[in-house]
Amino acid sequence: MKRFSVASYLPILDWGRTYSARTLTGDLVAAVIVTIMLIPQSLAYALLAGLPPVVGLYASILPLLIYALFGTSRTLAVGPVAVVSLMTAAAVSEVAAPGSAEYVAAAALLALISGAMLLVLGLFRLGFIANLLSHAVISGFITASGILIAVSQLKHILGVSAGGRNLVEIVVSISGTLGQINVHTLAIGMVSVGFLFWVRTGLKPLLMKTGLSPFVAGLVSRAGPVIAVAVSILAVLTFDLADKGVRIVGEIPAGLPPLHLPMIDMSLVLGLIGPAALISVIGFVESVSVAQTLAAKRRQTITPNQELVGLGAANIASAFSGGYPVTGGFARSVVNFDAGAETPAAGAFTAIGIALASLFLTPLLYFLPIATLAATIIVAVLSLVDFAALKRTWAYSRHDFAAMITTIVVTLAVGVEAGVVTGVGLSIALLLWRTSRPHIAIVGQVPGTEHFRNVKRHEVVTDPRILSLRIDESLNFANARTIEDFILNEIAQRPSVRHLVLQCTAVNEIDGSALESLELIMHRLSDQGIALHLSEVKGPVMDRLKRASFLEHLTGGVYLTHYQAMAALAVGFAGEACPPDRSARASEPHS
Amino acid sequence: MKRFSVASYLPILDWGRTYSARTLTGDLVAAVIVTIMLIPQSLAYALLAGLPPVVGLYASILPLLIYALFGTSRTLAVGPVAVVSLMTAAAVSEVAAPGSAEYVAAAALLALISGAMLLVLGLFRLGFIANLLSHAVISGFITASGILIAVSQLKHILGVSAGGRNLVEIVVSISGTLGQINVHTLAIGMVSVGFLFWVRTGLKPLLMKTGLSPFVAGLVSRAGPVIAVAVSILAVLTFDLADKGVRIVGEIPAGLPPLHLPMIDMSLVLGLIGPAALISVIGFVESVSVAQTLAAKRRQTITPNQELVGLGAANIASAFSGGYPVTGGFARSVVNFDAGAETPAAGAFTAIGIALASLFLTPLLYFLPIATLAATIIVAVLSLVDFAALKRTWAYSRHDFAAMITTIVVTLAVGVEAGVVTGVGLSIALLLWRTSRPHIAIVGQVPGTEHFRNVKRHEVVTDPRILSLRIDESLNFANARTIEDFILNEIAQRPSVRHLVLQCTAVNEIDGSALESLELIMHRLSDQGIALHLSEVKGPVMDRLKRASFLEHLTGGVYLTHYQAMAALAVGFAGEACPPDRSARASEPHS
Repeated sequence: MKRFSVASYLPILDWGRTYSARTLTGDLVAAVIVTIMLIPQSLAYALLAGLPPVVGLYASILPLLIYALFGTSRTLAVGPVAVVSLMTAAAVSEVAAPGSAEYVAAAALLALISGAMLLVLGLFRLGFIANLLSHAVISGFITASGILIAVSQLKHILGVSAGGRNLVEIVVSISGTLGQINVHTLAIGMVSVGFLFWVRTGLKPLLMKTGLSPFVAGLVSRAGPVIAVAVSILAVLTFDLADKGVRIVGEIPAGLPPLHLPMIDMSLVLGLIGPAALISVIGFVESVSVAQTLAAKRRQTITPNQELVGLGAANIASAFSGGYPVTGGFARSVVNFDAGAETPAAGAFTAIGIALASLFLTPLLYFLPIATLAATIIVAVLSLVDFAALKRTWAYSRHDFAAMITTIVVTLAVGVEAGVVTGVGLSIALLLWRTSRPHIAIVGQVPGTEHFRNVKRHEVVTDPRILSLRIDESLNFANARTIEDFILNEIAQRPSVRHLVLQCTAVNEIDGSALESLELIMHRLSDQGIALHLSEVKGPVMDRLKRASFLEHLTGGVYLTHYQAMAALAVGFAGEACPPDRSARASEPHS
Repeated sequence: MKRFSVASYLPILDWGRTYSARTLTGDLVAAVIVTIMLIPQSLAYALLAGLPPVVGLYASILPLLIYALFGTSRTLAVGPVAVVSLMTAAAVSEVAAPGSAEYVAAAALLALISGAMLLVLGLFRLGFIANLLSHAVISGFITASGILIAVSQLKHILGVSAGGRNLVEIVVSISGTLGQINVHTLAIGMVSVGFLFWVRTGLKPLLMKTGLSPFVAGLVSRAGPVIAVAVSILAVLTFDLADKGVRIVGEIPAGLPPLHLPMIDMSLVLGLIGPAALISVIGFVESVSVAQTLAAKRRQTITPNQELVGLGAANIASAFSGGYPVTGGFARSVVNFDAGAETPAAGAFTAIGIALASLFLTPLLYFLPIATLAATIIVAVLSLVDFAALKRTWAYSRHDFAAMITTIVVTLAVGVEAGVVTGVGLSIALLLWRTSRPHIAIVGQVPGTEHFRNVKRHEVVTDPRILSLRIDESLNFANARTIEDFILNEIAQRPSVRHLVLQCTAVNEIDGSALESLELIMHRLSDQGIALHLSEVKGPVMDRLKRASFLEHLTGGVYLTHYQAMAALAVGFAGEACPPDRSARASEPHS
């Protein structure tokens, strides 16, 4: 265990000491590029969360500064992200009317609760809780979220009013409004989507043909959304589209975020606590995964539990500055890394860039069409959808596939929270099911060696008076009874058996329930005149067994190797009439 | 897998073929003794369940006949038992007023639902669900139930009216009524309790001194409750105690149980479905445990999934004949076994005995004091209380102890259902926690051998360019990220490492999440110029890995033994300047 140190809770004390002009340059360049990328993203994700666009800007200032103090990733770009924005919309619309001041306040409160949870998990080093989210559940959830988000933005592209919390509701709601489609909005939306798709796929090769390096071309093509924003503002101004029914962002209050205590209403807190837990865990898992991938590229490490502290503090900061839940974003972090960010200071510089935008740029965004923001969301989230993962997972593991498809279906059909909870529940149930059915092999000796192998897979010899079993799993309450059943059944089928030897090579733990089962098995065998022996018990398992009385009244012995056990028991039979060996395969018609 | 056969669902076809005069004698003797024991028990447990005494008799007739057809245990004595009666009271008093006709109907409905659940679990071979109840939870639950039951019967000993669903409520309720104690009732109750305790401990030695064999003395002392019943009836008659406020059983309708469809009310069904599930699982687990213990003594086996069918059918029969939930009772089954029962026919004969008692004996029970029945319950259930298990469990496993004490405390403080659910939830959470923190050893070569051992426990040699890890656990979603973190941290601390070899001796499974993690680890290592190798991968794990693309782009190799891996990698370094060996211990200041 590491000792407590202030530096472990304040990583800036570590990287700050070696800060140089070179790192400053890298950080500044990255910050400029990320700022350009983040302005339209923050406005769009706030829209997705059902919040005024300015909330997206607010969530991109103070949280970034605070994460720079507490976070351990050198390149993670914190801020509003798509999936968390969708989850925010789902949670907050349950407790407040969309568009109301209460809705904005509830979103800040959600960030506060989520931040407090992350902080507590981090301070108590409880990050392992995130392990409950299997890759299959996360992958399924992200895919389903991507679909849900894209479909939910269709209304902005069509220029209609629609709602709904799941795929069915959204589709029904939109199809009821198709008569009200605004053609100008649709035109802007379609062109924006088309342009942004082209930017993703076609712009970089084109720029490279003009002689730009792949690196610069890649970064420039990240500015696609800014170009779409600028052009569509000009289009609205030129063709007077705001008067023709094209919804625009409108007035964004200029200035820095207002600092104030979020409104804390206990009934609201109770309504938001469940969604906050899910947002915390999912945001954390996604964020850590990006941070680790980037850190590994430079042979750095991150500390997941300190990341909880960093993200928790960032969310609390977001709550105090009129924002909403934030986490580390994948695309933005990769850009930050590629653009040369060396330390978390890059994030702080990005915060300054967004602050400047909030102060001086908001009047320019007045005529920005909502449809353009919706287009940036749609193009961004469709990259989250990964149906190929379904195929890969099906090939490898039916259980993981079941968890993944269930998460997708429930998320789409019911909603984000139900999807995650069902997926996690199913993963745990399937893990317990697998644990409850351990692989147990009857083993025999490979002739002429000291090795013992499964009688079903190898030509081995066994002694009809000794049954040797190898249990390929730790023994615990989930499988204790299965093992009891298996052993008693095998013994009942073999009247000649007088010794049972359990080869414990693969037993990493024996819990209290399994110990009780071993006692039961021993007593039941003893009633039939059969002794129970153990072989190849691991050190830690043996240490533990010595704390119970089991070994004291064990009817057989404990042997270092299975070979020694068989040799010792064979000596016990010396002089008896029974044949020493027989072919196991021949005597095992079924099992 | 076994093929479907009618006989596997109707075990009577098996044992019925070999039925003889000898087995008949054994079964008849056992049936007579069990009947004598069961008459007072069935009345008392019905009382505990809040039901009229006659319901206990009804629950001891048809269910026993039906279990004899479908059950696989040759000696299990099915009928009303203490813990299930307590759970019935807890469940039914939530949906109907105690003492009402609806209460009796709801108890029968509970048996129907529970029976249907058991039947479905049995037909679909889903008995493994019972594995979720760890020994620690069951042991804690039984202890707490024993305490709750004993305390709940105090009111009958004191002759007061009181209620309550948990220890606190019961104690508060009783203490508010201490002014109304009926001294005659108290006298009968105290004498009965004292007598029954003496019968348990002192009668058998006394009988043996008179020359009876231990076996006969043991069986005769089982008749203690019948003696208490007879004597207390005589006392009530002699001293006119019924007129002095001593509550008596009163009129029990004579006759066989009425056969009718239980009233099925959907809102009642919904209210009872949760408790029915718990009653089913707990009744099943207890019953199977007794049945297996007894079967093993005669080298017989039982089939847990068919036991579900047998118990399910018995409960459905109970519902159709005015009974309530039943299961296999521990004490009764042991007596049945000891008295010489050879086949389930003994249960059928017991049913006939109870039917005769229902027809002809009930007038005799009119003056039976409730206090005597309460005394038989108290003395019976206190043997369930096992505080020594707490101490044993503490010594062996803190996790099991936590599950056990939590189950006890919540059962006593809140109620039986909350106790079981909390205990099971905690057991699963702790199992996941252990799974999420696998033991990972850095291994080195034992000099002069082909063996590799933990560098912390043994004097071994390692190569600074190769990191060898042995993960002592199957790889799954619960520990995938822990392993990622561990590996990346160890690599970050060892700049000289160029190869990572995972020794997979103890890896029994790699699930989809863990495979993704291995891919991630491989890519992150690859970014740092480090190759990932596997050694000693088990056959089934390897078969599965071949279904994914992981092995195709594995940056290193897969080796049959760890020694082969190290030898092959050392060849790759041939001619390089780095020293071939160094002491691992010296180079591992911490970790």
